[in-house]
Amino acid sequence: MRILVANVNTTESMTRSIGAQAAAVAAPGTEIVPLTPAFGAESVEGNYESYLAAVAVMETVRAYPEPYDAVIQAGYGEHGREGLQELLDVPVVDITEAAASTAQYLGHRYSVVTTLDRTVPLIEDRLKLAGLTDRCASVRASGMAVLDLERDPEAAVEAIAEQAVRAVEDDRAEVICLGCGGMSGLAERVVARTGAPVVDGVAAAVTVAESLVRLGLTTSKVRTYAPPRPKHIRNWPPTG
Amino acid sequence: MRILVANVNTTESMTRSIGAQAAAVAAPGTEIVPLTPAFGAESVEGNYESYLAAVAVMETVRAYPEPYDAVIQAGYGEHGREGLQELLDVPVVDITEAAASTAQYLGHRYSVVTTLDRTVPLIEDRLKLAGLTDRCASVRASGMAVLDLERDPEAAVEAIAEQAVRAVEDDRAEVICLGCGGMSGLAERVVARTGAPVVDGVAAAVTVAESLVRLGLTTSKVRTYAPPRPKHIRNWPPTG
Amino acid sequence: MRILVANVNTTESMTRSIGAQAAAVAAPGTEIVPLTPAFGAESVEGNYESYLAAVAVMETVRAYPEPYDAVIQAGYGEHGREGLQELLDVPVVDITEAAASTAQYLGHRYSVVTTLDRTVPLIEDRLKLAGLTDRCASVRASGMAVLDLERDPEAAVEAIAEQAVRAVEDDRAEVICLGCGGMSGLAERVVARTGAPVVDGVAAAVTVAESLVRLGLTTSKVRTYAPPRPKHIRNWPPTG
Amino acid sequence: MRILVANVNTTESMTRSIGAQAAAVAAPGTEIVPLTPAFGAESVEGNYESYLAAVAVMETVRAYPEPYDAVIQAGYGEHGREGLQELLDVPVVDITEAAASTAQYLGHRYSVVTTLDRTVPLIEDRLKLAGLTDRCASVRASGMAVLDLERDPEAAVEAIAEQAVRAVEDDRAEVICLGCGGMSGLAERVVARTGAPVVDGVAAAVTVAESLVRLGLTTSKVRTYAPPRPKHIRNWPPTG
Amino acid sequence: MRILVANVNTTESMTRSIGAQAAAVAAPGTEIVPLTPAFGAESVEGNYESYLAAVAVMETVRAYPEPYDAVIQAGYGEHGREGLQELLDVPVVDITEAAASTAQYLGHRYSVVTTLDRTVPLIEDRLKLAGLTDRCASVRASGMAVLDLERDPEAAVEAIAEQAVRAVEDDRAEVICLGCGGMSGLAERVVARTGAPVVDGVAAAVTVAESLVRLGLTTSKVRTYAPPRPKHIRNWPPTG
Amino acid sequence: MRILVANVNTTESMTRSIGAQAAAVAAPGTEIVPLTPAFGAESVEGNYESYLAAVAVMETVRAYPEPYDAVIQAGYGEHGREGLQELLDVPVVDITEAAASTAQYLGHRYSVVTTLDRTVPLIEDRLKLAGLTDRCASVRASGMAVLDLERDPEAAVEAIAEQAVRAVEDDRAEVICLGCGGMSGLAERVVARTGAPVVDGVAAAVTVAESLVRLGLTTSKVRTYAPPRPKHIRNWPPTG
Repeated sequence: MRILVANVNTTESMTRSIGAQAAAVAAPGTEIVPLTPAFGAESVEGNYESYLAAVAVMETVRAYPEPYDAVIQAGYGEHGREGLQELLDVPVVDITEAAASTAQYLGHRYSVVTTLDRTVPLIEDRLKLAGLTDRCASVRASGMAVLDLERDPEAAVEAIAEQAVRAVEDDRAEVICLGCGGMSGLAERVVARTGAPVVDGVAAAVTVAESLVRLGLTTSKVRTYAPPRPKHIRNWPPTG
Repeated sequence: MRILVANVNTTESMTRSIGAQAAAVAAPGTEIVPLTPAFGAESVEGNYESYLAAVAVMETVRAYPEPYDAVIQAGYGEHGREGLQELLDVPVVDITEAAASTAQYLGHRYSVVTTLDRTVPLIEDRLKLAGLTDRCASVRASGMAVLDLERDPEAAVEAIAEQAVRAVEDDRAEVICLGCGGMSGLAERVVARTGAPVVDGVAAAVTVAESLVRLGLTTSKVRTYAPPRPKHIRNWPPTG
Repeated sequence: MRILVANVNTTESMTRSIGAQAAAVAAPGTEIVPLTPAFGAESVEGNYESYLAAVAVMETVRAYPEPYDAVIQAGYGEHGREGLQELLDVPVVDITEAAASTAQYLGHRYSVVTTLDRTVPLIEDRLKLAGLTDRCASVRASGMAVLDLERDPEAAVEAIAEQAVRAVEDDRAEVICLGCGGMSGLAERVVARTGAPVVDGVAAAVTVAESLVRLGLTTSKVRTYAPPRPKHIRNWPPTG
Repeated sequence: MRILVANVNTTESMTRSIGAQAAAVAAPGTEIVPLTPAFGAESVEGNYESYLAAVAVMETVRAYPEPYDAVIQAGYGEHGREGLQELLDVPVVDITEAAASTAQYLGHRYSVVTTLDRTVPLIEDRLKLAGLTDRCASVRASGMAVLDLERDPEAAVEAIAEQAVRAVEDDRAEVICLGCGGMSGLAERVVARTGAPVVDGVAAAVTVAESLVRLGLTTSKVRTYAPPRPKHIRNWPPTG
Repeated sequence: MRILVANVNTTESMTRSIGAQAAAVAAPGTEIVPLTPAFGAESVEGNYESYLAAVAVMETVRAYPEPYDAVIQAGYGEHGREGLQELLDVPVVDITEAAASTAQYLGHRYSVVTTLDRTVPLIEDRLKLAGLTDRCASVRASGMAVLDLERDPEAAVEAIAEQAVRAVEDDRAEVICLGCGGMSGLAERVVARTGAPVVDGVAAAVTVAESLVRLGLTTSKVRTYAPPRPKHIRNWPPTG
Repeated sequence: MRILVANVNTTESMTRSIGAQAAAVAAPGTEIVPLTPAFGAESVEGNYESYLAAVAVMETVRAYPEPYDAVIQAGYGEHGREGLQELLDVPVVDITEAAASTAQYLGHRYSVVTTLDRTVPLIEDRLKLAGLTDRCASVRASGMAVLDLERDPEAAVEAIAEQAVRAVEDDRAEVICLGCGGMSGLAERVVARTGAPVVDGVAAAVTVAESLVRLGLTTSKVRTYAPPRPKHIRNWPPTG
């Protein structure tokens, strides 16, 4: 099967890294196609950038010329998943939700450790809409910006691990979700520091997408995610 | 003061109608500036169209060349308000939230009567994020599409009033919110049918925006709605 | 229009101060009528005093001989608003709810900073009934009694500002509500300390009341706030 | 031990009936003292009357000259319990809460069947503040006014039993609470119609009050229910 | 009346201690019959042991040869109460729920202080199912194992009192529940340290059970707790 | 990898059917081992039987002599999952939770259609503890007993499909979960009737278990699911 993995920012190196992480856990026979949006911010750390990413991902996925079986939206706490679900019949998996749902199988409560403080409410809002907050112990910020994760991975690990420890000890989390598409390499070291299982959203989303495809399940079209009604769309999509 | 009232769809006649409704309740000295997005759908009735509207409204507001004191996003249950709040210091008022908050002053529980069944979950989600669901008795669909409201106002009134009656009698609502930017002319007749106060979101939002301005209150910049960080945005905004 | 602003305690200087604060934000053409209850406690800091204030405000408003367009109950976290709504057709606005609803337009979460620790649960209960807790980060006590605010304003500002800072930093509030009718002069200094918008309940309530009147909205009479049924009331109201 | 059972209305025959019901379940050695408020409405069916009852009950209890061990507030869904708790060290038991708490021992969910539609939101609000809504299936109105229960008991039984049946079948209740101080004689017939246990609030409250006394438990004074602070109360209580 | 008080562990000395505590508060004429399960763990501090206790208590109660009027399950946060309710017509009272329900009559919020950190989530889950979390300020662990309470009562008191103080001061509890069947002797000293009322679950449950019996109330059989359907049970119960 | 799939009842034909359903969706290389508990009821339709199943499944899994990678508890709404998680390091997946979590990827809200009315509260309770109720539209009973599903599959399909249609139309579900281990063959026909995706819990659980194993994730041992402490267990497990 073929799974599109859509980065939400326009930094190609992050797309490659996300793609590699996805490919590393994909089952034999699964082809991972990483996509970079045609427009948008180099990193997504707030609502303006996230809304822009939402439409950019939608158009990028729509423009993909080959058939595919599922789509992963590889941004943590981002807008847009519901739009993709309307446009597509194949399953759409958001990494924020995949990580949280996966974490819930492993412990009584989970925490998310993310990048900047300002992105915490976005993640909280996405979890609230997804109905995944009851067992969320906390969403914590490491203070590292998205691009810092690539620039100074050592400091990133340290900052993230520290918040993970506080999540387990102070907030009573029993599982940690890494709250950013670019954190996937850090899992082992956070496990070492906390003793708790650590869930990477991209990896979790790949297995969820594969599972849905194998089960023959597709997005429900009975109400919320019915295809857009035919109507006039003015000046869109933008033409290069 | 000057208030921008942004329609979320690209139908100019609806922009005019929304603008007229806003102007009708504006205080002396308030200038209402209705805006139509430069791109997007002729009516917004789902997530894809709504995400597109979100970014279209943002760019349209950003491109407005004169100073202004507040912005109203005049779409019911739409995405995007948080992005505007990041971009702007002036208050941003969403009509979904203005209607619900206003309704809460008037009765124990309120209901929303909207257009199509498929848009009900969008409104529910927006109210959930706004923390305004505890006293929401129901969100009901009249089955009328947005553009039907203009095309067949008589049938629209009938369908909406019927749902309003059911909201009061079956769902125990005591106040009705008209759940669409284009419903503003219907209030009186729904009042006549239900005996309950009827809140129009555009009108409510105008008074909220004026109030915030008069109180000297602006969007908090301490965390969620801090301005976007300076960074590279690729291929955006689209250039005509 | 004429708005009655009912103080909940019997301290005339506080009535004057509340009235002045209301008048300062009222629109041209709005007449503010401050009222002091005919009986009750010199300050309201608990349930017994608050229940007493509830009936005192009701009788005081009922005894007001002139027509009026709206009533503001200017006590933070007090009982009684629902009774006024039954008795009156004009809108009734509670400052606890007006402050919180206003704050919700400005940031992701808000906190209330109030006087004594013992009044925190009263405010929490009023917000719970009003359906305004989802986005309430915390209700914090400054430890200052109501009358201390007049007696030692300097210490009051300091104590309140300190709790406001903790609300923003520890509880993740982005907006602060001043949780007492007598705090209205402190807003600027709390803004200076926190960088967050500060909402005064009396000021917010004035704009809400004006808005409801201008929109032609009145209290719903379909169920909860229908007028009291005609019946025998023994020994009440008390006759001086 | 001596338990004061305070009726909330001024109808002496209802006080006697409540007192008899309380005495019927009291343990040997428990003296039930029924009290009628010195002022207020002949029946309490709304917020204005209920706030009035709140202060009337408080003053009536305060004026009681002998020692006592507990107080029962025998009105369903009424204001005032928190004020009594401040004034007294002995336990205060509200029949709304006693009925619901008792019902929760007996089935998965309970419903309340009360008098008029307009009183439903009052009961819902009281249960919400008491933290007893999670397992509340519904609050249903029989349409009978409080005084109708005495005037036409046959019709009352029929109307109440019908709503109880609907609560069990439609709302999935497994226990029924009789939602009015004057309904206590109806329990058996509602049991016969529904097959579900039926809890009378007055009876339940008597056993709760006795239990608290026997356990040596008194109202917590550490915060919310600390005694009112010493202060000047103007023109209160009213002097006949 | 006769009340069976079922210990959940197989330590006879704890059964005796629980029985003595129950007898100490029982009304004249109430016979307390303490029961030790025929199989299971010497102390119950986790889910495996608790599920085992659930079935052991059920079989032990079923094997009791004499008539009885109510059953108390004397384990804090344990599984099994719903099964007993299916098997029996007489009331079944869980001490976790009895303590919390009792505490709710006494203060605005309550906390539970229990033994080991690992049992906190079990208690939280039981309170959640019982619908008793809205007013639960916290569940805190003292770090003392169940059997330590007998072995080193002095250290136990100290550890428990310390957490109780933190519950009152930091979590804003106003009442403390002692979260273990074996803590009943400690109440007075925790009262002395906190100034808050302290509820012992076993004592509370005895008065609840007596109350239900006196009120003639039995477990609802209309749905959830209907008797098990007749069917083949293989290899059970185990035969010695 | 090897996955144990534990039936919760002692009917061997159901174990075989569950095993076949699991094997049908298992990935190449996954060995499904269906297990029947050594003791317990022929079908599980209530709390007594479910608690018994909980301990029976635990002992059956513990007695399994070979290594394995994950365990599926194949009963809908049953007790016991938390005990298995304590006993084992490998992931434990409950089909109730796997179905609901899977459904949440596919539509805005999901409903469960189960067997008897009396089992609805058990499923509701399990979903509540799992934090999966926010997006649960309803749990509906078809009225078919577990063993009826085998005896009269035609009637079962009809009854289940009818409830599924009502869930979609009346409760606004967009996805249906089949709420019984023995319903797995019915999915296609319910899809045909509702147009909504239908999730079978056993199938979903197999893909979840495989995913967790492939991701190298195991049950968190930091608190709730730490291994039972070493202690004396009397008379258990039962010896044949």
